[in-house]
Parts: sequence; C-alpha cells; structure tokens
Amino acid sequence: MYGVQFMNDDALDRTSGHVYIAVSLDGFVARSDRTIDWLTKQETEGEEHGYAAFVESMDGIVMGRGSFETVLGFGGNWPYQKPVVVMSGTLTAGDVPDELIGRVRLSDLDPVEQMRALRREGWRRAYVDGGGLVQAFVRLGLIEDFVLTTIPILIGDGIRLFGELDGDLDLELLGVTPYPSGLVQSHYRVRRE
Amino acid sequence: MYGVQFMNDDALDRTSGHVYIAVSLDGFVARSDRTIDWLTKQETEGEEHGYAAFVESMDGIVMGRGSFETVLGFGGNWPYQKPVVVMSGTLTAGDVPDELIGRVRLSDLDPVEQMRALRREGWRRAYVDGGGLVQAFVRLGLIEDFVLTTIPILIGDGIRLFGELDGDLDLELLGVTPYPSGLVQSHYRVRRE
Repeated sequence: MYGVQFMNDDALDRTSGHVYIAVSLDGFVARSDRTIDWLTKQETEGEEHGYAAFVESMDGIVMGRGSFETVLGFGGNWPYQKPVVVMSGTLTAGDVPDELIGRVRLSDLDPVEQMRALRREGWRRAYVDGGGLVQAFVRLGLIEDFVLTTIPILIGDGIRLFGELDGDLDLELLGVTPYPSGLVQSHYRVRRE
Repeated sequence: MYGVQFMNDDALDRTSGHVYIAVSLDGFVARSDRTIDWLTKQETEGEEHGYAAFVESMDGIVMGRGSFETVLGFGGNWPYQKPVVVMSGTLTAGDVPDELIGRVRLSDLDPVEQMRALRREGWRRAYVDGGGLVQAFVRLGLIEDFVLTTIPILIGDGIRLFGELDGDLDLELLGVTPYPSGLVQSHYRVRRE
C-alpha cells in the first residue's frame, strides 16, 4: 500500500508530496493548543498502521514551524532518521538545537521552489507533515496522495487537516483498512485530469 | 448493518436519532449555497449503499428548514414515505404544500422535547437529516449513530457535517465498506460511558 510508485514521480520537476496523518472524524489533526491527547489515548496496542514503512519510502520530511516546535516540545530523542526541512520564514539557525544540525535545516523558500530544489538534490518523495503545511501544499498541487488514519472521536474544534481551495479536488480511493481499535486508515490519490 | 438495535432504544424516554449522510472527505454535506453537484456527479451505478434499508428501519424523519426547502426545490415527487417533522421556528402552515399535509408537519419544539414527544407517539428511531440539525442534535446527545458515506473529493468550503461540541464525543466503529466508485461508508456509534 505504501510502496506504490506513482507514474508521474519521474516526470515531475519537483519532489512529490505525500501525507500520512491522523485525523479526528470531524477533521482535526490537533486541538487549537496543538495537543493530541485525543489521539494518544486510543488503545491500538498490537496494531500495525504502516507508519515506519511509509517513512522508509520517503527521501525526507518537510514540516512547518508548528510541527517542528511540537516535536521538539515532546523532549526525548529526535524521532526522525530521514533529513528534515522545516518551512519557516521566522525561525533562525539558533532555533535548531545543536544535536540536530545536519539533520534539520530551515527554509524560507516558497513551497513550489522548495520542492523543485529538493528534486534537484535527488529527493523524489517527501513526507509533508503538519496541518497548516498540508493545507498550503494541497492548494499548490504539491500533494500526490494522502494516507489518513481516522480516529473514532469528535473533538469539536482545533487545527483542521483540510482548508479552503481554489476549486474542487477529485480523489481516487486506493484502499481502506479498519483496525480493531476503531481506527480506519484510508489512502487517496489526487486525480490530475 | 442498518438493522442493528441498540441496547438503550427501549430504555430511552425519547426517540433515538440516527444519521445517514454523505460527506466530502473534507467534512462538508453541501456547498455554502446548498448545492450537491459534487455528490451527484459520482459514478455509483450498480452500487447498493443501503439507504432504502436504513430509512425502512426508521419510524420517521426529522429535518431542518434548510433540508426541507432543498428537497422541495428539487421539484418532482416528495421522496419520503415515512412521516416527516420539520424543525423550524419560522416556517408556518402555509409553507407546507397542500399535497404534503398529513405527511409533513412543522415543529418549533426544542430538539429534546421534540424527541420525547415523538417517543410518546410511538416513534423509536428517527432519521435526523441536514447539516445544521445534525450538529444541534449531536451537541444535545440525541444521536445514537452515524452512517457516513465519504465522497472522494475535497470541496474546500461549505456546510459542515460536524460542529463545535461541549466536550469530546468518543465513537465506536461498527463497520466500514468501500465501494468501487471510491465512496467509503462507515458506521459509528456514540459511546455513552
């Protein structure tokens, strides 16, 4: 499911963007204060949701400032083995902890330019993470597919996964997997006519 | 799937509310102008989504003014065989076409009182339809379960299925069915602790 190679990967002059994210049934990726207690409380022991395989199939990770600060806030070890690009116009080199130098870099390029630059570096596929960044990348046509893990809960408010668009975006359903915990993982590819 | 009888149906002093609704992947039941072209354009010929069986298992339908006016606006025959209650504080008897007298009635009761009144009439289960009404009924704890048919499209803006809540609402996944068209039907029951 996660190893699918898309026809247009090689034809693109940019790195393709891929989303793997958990979302409440009412469409939120985090509460307004960025907390995800509603997600971490789910009892999913013994379930394999394919996250490691997904990340392994990527050349690197592109995230927004909010996601970066959230991950740093968790403390503990940096969870990513792949190179990470943090898209931010406000962070500066001093905001990257010493131990992450060489593994995390900041970029203030616009998203299209960033994805072109990564392609020139040899990245074919990037994991695009974080609600705000995903919305921007979707609007710019930079996302090829979504692996959504829908959590069986309504939280009522928070940071939305999807945002406003300039027009409809038709999707192709590639697969759906329900889990005993009640999580449902669905995989959609963006249709390009 | 739709004939499930919930334990608490008989114990309730009110009619239980049940939702069967199509929703875009980004959570909308209609565009802001109430149009559903994004839904009707789906190619689902030959697929059985269980709507008739769902409606058959209900004692009647409770809808909001917006849904009522939308259905009237379609022209053609009135699509419902079951009795319909339209919740509205503004419509008056004159807004109900003559041919619907006896099949459609207006109510300006609050939702809890309405569902209690329907239970006294003998209704056990009501189909609750329309974005605004569903949001209100969810907030009031009047909904037992949701059958959601997720359409593989992002429309960016419109009338949301889910709204703000006073607190989290945990759900139990009862089943998921993907269709060749790319529609995914999922069935969730509200957990009551």
